[in-house]
Amino acid sequence: MMITQLKEAMSRCYNFSAGPATLPLEVLEKAQQDLVDYQGTGMSVMEMSHRGKDYMAIHEAAEQNLRRLMNIPDHYKVLFMQGGASTQFAAVPFNLFSSSGKADYVNTGAWSKKAIAEARRYGKITVVASSEDAIFNYIPELKPEMFSGDADYVHITSNNTIYGTCYPSLPDVGGKPLVCDMSSDILSKPYDVSRFGVIYAGAQKNIGPAGLAIVIVREDLIGRAQEFTPTMLNYKTHAESNSMFNTPACFIIYLAGLVFEWMLANGGVEAMEVRNRQKAALLYNFLDQSELFKATVSGKDRSIMNIPFVTGNDELDRKFIAEAEMNNFKTLKGHRSVGGMRASIYNAFPREGVEKLVSFMKDFENKNL
Amino acid sequence: MMITQLKEAMSRCYNFSAGPATLPLEVLEKAQQDLVDYQGTGMSVMEMSHRGKDYMAIHEAAEQNLRRLMNIPDHYKVLFMQGGASTQFAAVPFNLFSSSGKADYVNTGAWSKKAIAEARRYGKITVVASSEDAIFNYIPELKPEMFSGDADYVHITSNNTIYGTCYPSLPDVGGKPLVCDMSSDILSKPYDVSRFGVIYAGAQKNIGPAGLAIVIVREDLIGRAQEFTPTMLNYKTHAESNSMFNTPACFIIYLAGLVFEWMLANGGVEAMEVRNRQKAALLYNFLDQSELFKATVSGKDRSIMNIPFVTGNDELDRKFIAEAEMNNFKTLKGHRSVGGMRASIYNAFPREGVEKLVSFMKDFENKNL
Repeated sequence: MMITQLKEAMSRCYNFSAGPATLPLEVLEKAQQDLVDYQGTGMSVMEMSHRGKDYMAIHEAAEQNLRRLMNIPDHYKVLFMQGGASTQFAAVPFNLFSSSGKADYVNTGAWSKKAIAEARRYGKITVVASSEDAIFNYIPELKPEMFSGDADYVHITSNNTIYGTCYPSLPDVGGKPLVCDMSSDILSKPYDVSRFGVIYAGAQKNIGPAGLAIVIVREDLIGRAQEFTPTMLNYKTHAESNSMFNTPACFIIYLAGLVFEWMLANGGVEAMEVRNRQKAALLYNFLDQSELFKATVSGKDRSIMNIPFVTGNDELDRKFIAEAEMNNFKTLKGHRSVGGMRASIYNAFPREGVEKLVSFMKDFENKNL
Repeated sequence: MMITQLKEAMSRCYNFSAGPATLPLEVLEKAQQDLVDYQGTGMSVMEMSHRGKDYMAIHEAAEQNLRRLMNIPDHYKVLFMQGGASTQFAAVPFNLFSSSGKADYVNTGAWSKKAIAEARRYGKITVVASSEDAIFNYIPELKPEMFSGDADYVHITSNNTIYGTCYPSLPDVGGKPLVCDMSSDILSKPYDVSRFGVIYAGAQKNIGPAGLAIVIVREDLIGRAQEFTPTMLNYKTHAESNSMFNTPACFIIYLAGLVFEWMLANGGVEAMEVRNRQKAALLYNFLDQSELFKATVSGKDRSIMNIPFVTGNDELDRKFIAEAEMNNFKTLKGHRSVGGMRASIYNAFPREGVEKLVSFMKDFENKNL
């Protein structure tokens, strides 16, 4: 088995996918080892009754380890839901519209826009700020007086996967529930959960495979859902049943749990942040002095998870992506709305991969300048 | 690897779980082999961009193979959704209420009741027949004149996991769209898809791990969703995007695809039915002549997937379950509403396991009568 694993490790590529994204090799190897027979139970985790003690222990540990990692206060519930962040775009207004049926949204990219469009179907939405004027390459300044007095909540997208921006600090929203789509930077650095009413995130970037949405919700915001809310979109349903109202996405939760264990064994969120900032600095520092490549975002709003860059020449971009691919640097193509390249370097992306990419970019620059 | 696999195969238990349920050993071994590096791509299927060619090929093959297995006509769409059958309990009325906002439901068990309760929140539901009077141990006779003239659809649950019943034949619903929760017997025997308006099923019985819901919907029923339908619950969203509107549950779809390939390699649904009927007959024949054990369902409504049985003595039931567990027959405890035992023997459950269970039951009977 040792030799097989080594061979597999050697043949692994550097996968810069924005999500589903690279997972820690140790997690994949552990899942592989236990795939047919989980720790002597005689069955795979995929085959276990979700009401049995073996799966229940996995489920409980995943929640507890996430609570430890994010230091989640006791008056917040952790929900394991399905349907991605896109389902939360409806679940948020369903659950949080109460007195006014109004909410404030900040528009910082394609996913913010989708969240806004969905919420508009159910209430009165004010877009209090937007960076659409500059292809979303910055985060607008937010001041307390910009928010509506009677909004039921304020919605932000903490990190914008496509454009490579993130909030340099959390806005002061004057005591209103702050709702955050944290899909692409949850667990990448410490967040003070007590600043939020609701945090939601699709798993497929820093948590695990696609098919799981994590919702962290302050208890007082549960139980107010509008009358027509589908039972499965009501936070109360999942809060009261420990996310076991129906069969959860057991195997994905198991893998998320393995990722949480890996994070705890590697210093937790604080250590992830140090590593992530070092990895991002390696690439940004190179980009800032390169004569060929250029980052599309500058200054304090730069994401440490997603780093888009361009040469300014579409043909050269294509050549770079093709040569990178041949050299085992995969999925570097940027989103069509920004063009060029994008390196997504989530928690599990190894530092070594960024170093090698920079070295490859230097070579490419020397040959093509 | 050969020796490891053999050891693993030998240590596997007989898992009678009602769902998540046992999967084909060949499927688990294939997934295990490719878990860290899928066919030389340098990454796990879990890590692949869902827009990349490798995952797209997996996604497309899964749909095409399901179409082959079920002989799905071209004017039906196959949707890969999330949130289980429980989410479909709301999605069905959201998508299908059109002219009257009325629907007919048949109440054949706990899951039918949940589907009815959810649909009642959105329209006028008539329960046209129920077997609740006898702890759901039969399927009511249905005649065309029992259905409402103006119902938008008729809803049935083809196989009742908890009670061990299934429809001996499909009801004649007079041309109205027949909607079927087929979670626990999809792919266990041939169904004529053209008889249905909508078929939906959670994956975790005959398809794959939990976290995927398959919806097969006639094209003319798409695009009528009520105004307040969440985008992610609207069949149109997924039909138009080939189930790629947002990130699908890629790894679960991959595993479902492996199960479909396994089924095709083993004679398809027709061969599954033969095998399933043989397995069920082994157990029913024993139960019908046993002096200790008794099936809770008799006659033509017996399920070939879920077989509940009792001794009539709670203490003896507990003793049997405990001794079975020690002999590697796992998850035989019945649902609390029926009591006793339940053997779920889906497609992937080996015939050998049923033979051994019957032999174990004979021994137990001799010792405890």
